[in-house]
Amino acid sequence: MNPPKTDARRHHDPQVRGFASDNYAGAHPEVMAALALANGGHQVAYGEDDYTEHLQGIIRSHFGPTAEAFPVFNGTGANVVALQAVTDRWGAVICAESAHINVDEGGAPERMGGLKLLTVPTPDGKLTPELIDRQAWGFDDEHRAMPQVVSITQSTELGTLYTPDEIRAICDHAHAHGLKVHLDGSRIANAAASLNVPMRTFTNAVGVDILSLGGTKNGALFGEAVVVINQDAVRRMKHLRKLSMQLASKMRFVSVQLEALLAKDLWLRNARHANEMAQRLAEGARAVHGVEILHPVQANGVFARLPHEVSLRLQKRFRFYFWDEAAGDVRWMCAYDTTEEDVDLFVAALKEEMAR
Amino acid sequence: MNPPKTDARRHHDPQVRGFASDNYAGAHPEVMAALALANGGHQVAYGEDDYTEHLQGIIRSHFGPTAEAFPVFNGTGANVVALQAVTDRWGAVICAESAHINVDEGGAPERMGGLKLLTVPTPDGKLTPELIDRQAWGFDDEHRAMPQVVSITQSTELGTLYTPDEIRAICDHAHAHGLKVHLDGSRIANAAASLNVPMRTFTNAVGVDILSLGGTKNGALFGEAVVVINQDAVRRMKHLRKLSMQLASKMRFVSVQLEALLAKDLWLRNARHANEMAQRLAEGARAVHGVEILHPVQANGVFARLPHEVSLRLQKRFRFYFWDEAAGDVRWMCAYDTTEEDVDLFVAALKEEMAR
Amino acid sequence: MNPPKTDARRHHDPQVRGFASDNYAGAHPEVMAALALANGGHQVAYGEDDYTEHLQGIIRSHFGPTAEAFPVFNGTGANVVALQAVTDRWGAVICAESAHINVDEGGAPERMGGLKLLTVPTPDGKLTPELIDRQAWGFDDEHRAMPQVVSITQSTELGTLYTPDEIRAICDHAHAHGLKVHLDGSRIANAAASLNVPMRTFTNAVGVDILSLGGTKNGALFGEAVVVINQDAVRRMKHLRKLSMQLASKMRFVSVQLEALLAKDLWLRNARHANEMAQRLAEGARAVHGVEILHPVQANGVFARLPHEVSLRLQKRFRFYFWDEAAGDVRWMCAYDTTEEDVDLFVAALKEEMAR
Amino acid sequence: MNPPKTDARRHHDPQVRGFASDNYAGAHPEVMAALALANGGHQVAYGEDDYTEHLQGIIRSHFGPTAEAFPVFNGTGANVVALQAVTDRWGAVICAESAHINVDEGGAPERMGGLKLLTVPTPDGKLTPELIDRQAWGFDDEHRAMPQVVSITQSTELGTLYTPDEIRAICDHAHAHGLKVHLDGSRIANAAASLNVPMRTFTNAVGVDILSLGGTKNGALFGEAVVVINQDAVRRMKHLRKLSMQLASKMRFVSVQLEALLAKDLWLRNARHANEMAQRLAEGARAVHGVEILHPVQANGVFARLPHEVSLRLQKRFRFYFWDEAAGDVRWMCAYDTTEEDVDLFVAALKEEMAR
Repeated sequence: MNPPKTDARRHHDPQVRGFASDNYAGAHPEVMAALALANGGHQVAYGEDDYTEHLQGIIRSHFGPTAEAFPVFNGTGANVVALQAVTDRWGAVICAESAHINVDEGGAPERMGGLKLLTVPTPDGKLTPELIDRQAWGFDDEHRAMPQVVSITQSTELGTLYTPDEIRAICDHAHAHGLKVHLDGSRIANAAASLNVPMRTFTNAVGVDILSLGGTKNGALFGEAVVVINQDAVRRMKHLRKLSMQLASKMRFVSVQLEALLAKDLWLRNARHANEMAQRLAEGARAVHGVEILHPVQANGVFARLPHEVSLRLQKRFRFYFWDEAAGDVRWMCAYDTTEEDVDLFVAALKEEMAR
Repeated sequence: MNPPKTDARRHHDPQVRGFASDNYAGAHPEVMAALALANGGHQVAYGEDDYTEHLQGIIRSHFGPTAEAFPVFNGTGANVVALQAVTDRWGAVICAESAHINVDEGGAPERMGGLKLLTVPTPDGKLTPELIDRQAWGFDDEHRAMPQVVSITQSTELGTLYTPDEIRAICDHAHAHGLKVHLDGSRIANAAASLNVPMRTFTNAVGVDILSLGGTKNGALFGEAVVVINQDAVRRMKHLRKLSMQLASKMRFVSVQLEALLAKDLWLRNARHANEMAQRLAEGARAVHGVEILHPVQANGVFARLPHEVSLRLQKRFRFYFWDEAAGDVRWMCAYDTTEEDVDLFVAALKEEMAR
Repeated sequence: MNPPKTDARRHHDPQVRGFASDNYAGAHPEVMAALALANGGHQVAYGEDDYTEHLQGIIRSHFGPTAEAFPVFNGTGANVVALQAVTDRWGAVICAESAHINVDEGGAPERMGGLKLLTVPTPDGKLTPELIDRQAWGFDDEHRAMPQVVSITQSTELGTLYTPDEIRAICDHAHAHGLKVHLDGSRIANAAASLNVPMRTFTNAVGVDILSLGGTKNGALFGEAVVVINQDAVRRMKHLRKLSMQLASKMRFVSVQLEALLAKDLWLRNARHANEMAQRLAEGARAVHGVEILHPVQANGVFARLPHEVSLRLQKRFRFYFWDEAAGDVRWMCAYDTTEEDVDLFVAALKEEMAR
Repeated sequence: MNPPKTDARRHHDPQVRGFASDNYAGAHPEVMAALALANGGHQVAYGEDDYTEHLQGIIRSHFGPTAEAFPVFNGTGANVVALQAVTDRWGAVICAESAHINVDEGGAPERMGGLKLLTVPTPDGKLTPELIDRQAWGFDDEHRAMPQVVSITQSTELGTLYTPDEIRAICDHAHAHGLKVHLDGSRIANAAASLNVPMRTFTNAVGVDILSLGGTKNGALFGEAVVVINQDAVRRMKHLRKLSMQLASKMRFVSVQLEALLAKDLWLRNARHANEMAQRLAEGARAVHGVEILHPVQANGVFARLPHEVSLRLQKRFRFYFWDEAAGDVRWMCAYDTTEEDVDLFVAALKEEMAR
């Protein structure tokens, strides 16, 4: 059988990969195959399809019997829907200053969700009960936006991890103050792979109420889900998702991607591989004189400090981003499709450029 | 070569189709093939990829040299981004009472966009300069939300069409009042196919400033675009898209779907076929005694009135929706994958149930 | 004792009055005297003062033992705070097309409150259970903003009145659908005066959940209150008032004005007088050949139809507004300080101008 | 002539004053007298009255020929209207972490204005060009809320002052980055009095674009104004004020209060007196062993550190607030009506309680 023709053409070289972002990777072949399976015929739109229903069982197998998934389009959408779900009109979100919701979502939480963010500086992207306490006060003071939820990111924007016990401590502390806990799991798979535990171990098992489950960075074309664990904490999720412009009409195509990732172990294979590539990269880079690795490399990101002009030269050979350009800090991300050869070539190039 | 395996399974019968919605259909095989083409390797995320760049030329070929496409996830997102783009904080949108933005978007325009909708009842879903005048006043009155844009839908939510001249008259009238014109083109392809003119004929050629270009109902898995025609009318579209939670990270997969549809004539073939099936269905239904066809069938939707209990029986055999259940009005939608046999079986069933 | 000097000067003629708006009138002398009483010394800001506390008893005497007043600055603020209080993020408000919240608040309910208004055309500004039913549906449909509250205005924007039984029927109907009832009482005093019943008769006695209590049009300098009757319907009113920018720091000066009006019968004297002047004006105008009175004159407003050029000439002598300029409709409002002589001079002028 | 009677009663002791807030004070007698002057007769509502018009000349005398005042109800309202005026939908506000807009407005800027605040920790509540640079970047990055305005407070929330040169440096720096400058002048009079310069010296003369002009803390019952200096920076202020629920119907009563304060020197007398009382208080307190004064006392607030249990005992005798209860920090505010005797009694009590 010949593949179907299409009027679209290939505009890129599928052999080129870099270290800019796990979003630069495409979709895993098994995800593509899943899309084909779900295609054909008519399926009820807007989430009443068989794939979305089937996804629920898979989600429960990961996040326990109370878990329910609400597929959405992207990470910002997942976060804004989830945070609206656990706040009142007067509610505020305690989060790390470096949280994606604070620095990378264009103000969507404030503008679209009407949410106030109460931020705390952290050394490593991780909140603690003590850090939360800097903002967890004034609940009855109408002059202050009322803290109602703590949002943590696992793995963090700095490539670091919370242990399950650390999250449990946060949840216990938050709940004792009447706060809910949201986990931004854009890279939750990398966290589970690195900790070598099921995702439940640091979510429902330790008290997380609601989470944003990432699919895109894990090998999907697109697609995330808000996963509600504590059903008592939310109402009318479907209305919230719709009014937040995150309701997909042909939802089967979001759900089946999540199924492809989560039904067995593709999510874990992809994450584990990305993490291993980050380890390999960090080890290689550490061995290069003059390169400093900045944070513990616990997931699929490596943060390094090196001379600015070296980075500029290296960027001509491999795509990656500055994290703090003034300080000379860069971020190197590994994806599920990063190869050992990619890493080795990159480290060799780094060594070359450092030596010039 | 064997197809890639996936842990996902097929949960539906791909032979089953109904008349509930053009969103119930899956993706066209040529769209699926295009996704495969765009996959592999790394591409810059968030719209700096080669597919999104290439899409721009295709969009200009359809909507003129000033046109620029901003791919987004879904129709509500496209509308809310587009309408924010052409309004100030104090702006209001004049639209038909039956407009999708008014009745089917969960209040997203108001809640997320901060937009006031100034609605006008219409007999057939179509605005006219006279109908617009019912709301196009009070521009300097701060007590009134300031009309700043007219939003029309082509083809309309009632399956009717504007002629190019009708849209020209609306644009001229709107512009004379300082109003911009937005076209909700969720089903723009069906309109062009039915009018048998290029899409430009009733958009840039007659004065439309900005439009929501539909891909999903035309055969994509998901994916629409805001198309800006009048560049002077907008600023910072990328910021607006991001803060509205409509920025896809792996945007190549949205853009390549639109390319597959629009590069040559897939968009037109799909729309034309759906329209033809609606004609066939309308003709068949009209011939059934007791069935009344309610609006001119100009695109891919058929609105009919028949006894309520007949509809209930028919719904057990084919999926479709009531439009106005009290009145006995139903909506039957044809999709790009509706077959002649589907239609004939449905009409036969309709005849049977009417005769019982 | 000499009056205190001030650097401010008088810029207007305090003998000039017109028929443009009950907002054109100043403050009643007894209100001014109350302000002086409340002045001096320190009082806790933001509502913890003795005047606001004392006001609660007065409010309960009018609206029953569950009633609680939250003083705010103005009518738009009162409405937007009250409506937010009884809706979720996904909620919508059913109201008359002519409601102040829909046509005269600059889109504040939508933009500031994130509220969708579901409007119904009415002949006389009054909703009925039947009219409410046009919008009270689709509660579980996430594509639709969920109806959660019915907002009625008493007396209406067209100078008409609901009887207590009519409001009871609306409340019963609304509650049966799980909807709350909000009453915009910007002119509630005029309604009570005209119906010759206590305010409670058409509010707490018949099921109203929350209301906006008007002070400004009744003789205050400024100041209204959200009055919560059904405490189970709301939470955290103080937070809502603050985040809606309606929290007065020196709240004693709002509360004491409401006390001056409501402690005994100033509210009623003022409203009754304004109503009587409207009756006198309507009777006088009705007797002028060619002048048509448009709605039942039940409160302090008179709506009339007369030749456009006559209105233009008359406006040179007395200030008033067109209501529907194309139709020749005008609105004449009487205030608490309108005198019989004012009315008689106006009617004489009307007669003159009609005769020219 | 007897004073007008009122049904309101006096509920407080006008001889009691404390050090909790300048908002606890009432209105200055000259302001009360001005209200009486503006009362009587009809005046056009919503700002078309003679008092609001007259106010414009007074405002220009203070803030230059381009200045225009838009009276509003309160400080939060003034800030949110002003900041919306100089930002687009994608705009963000750079401000001190301790700014009133960030910590004391219940999230109104975010929720009502859709504004993202980009905060910077400061030692003394004052921004500098260097501190601004921590947030003034990423203008073209759609993932980041775009910095569009710097908001400074003069005098600050910590009782400190910017010199005119410091504000000039901020304005120059901001303008060089395309940012506007907003000044929260809730206590602008105290700043001018302390600096002993006209208000223009540190506003229009040095580049401030827009400001919130405080009346309430300066001796009004209520009332502030947004003052636009850079007319090119704003559009449709009246629409913004209305949709932000800050439009007073009987605006003459706001405007005449501002006139009473600003026409001659009442604003300055009031502010100077409050500042002097703060100096007296600071001097007295500094002399008490164990009491530390925390910030330079440059306006009408004194921040001190003393043993927590002493504060608790002292609060039983005089009302004031903790600023940072854990640290033992308290805030003592002086108002226009604070007397030397008040201060001396307070210092004596402080001494007594410290000695116990």
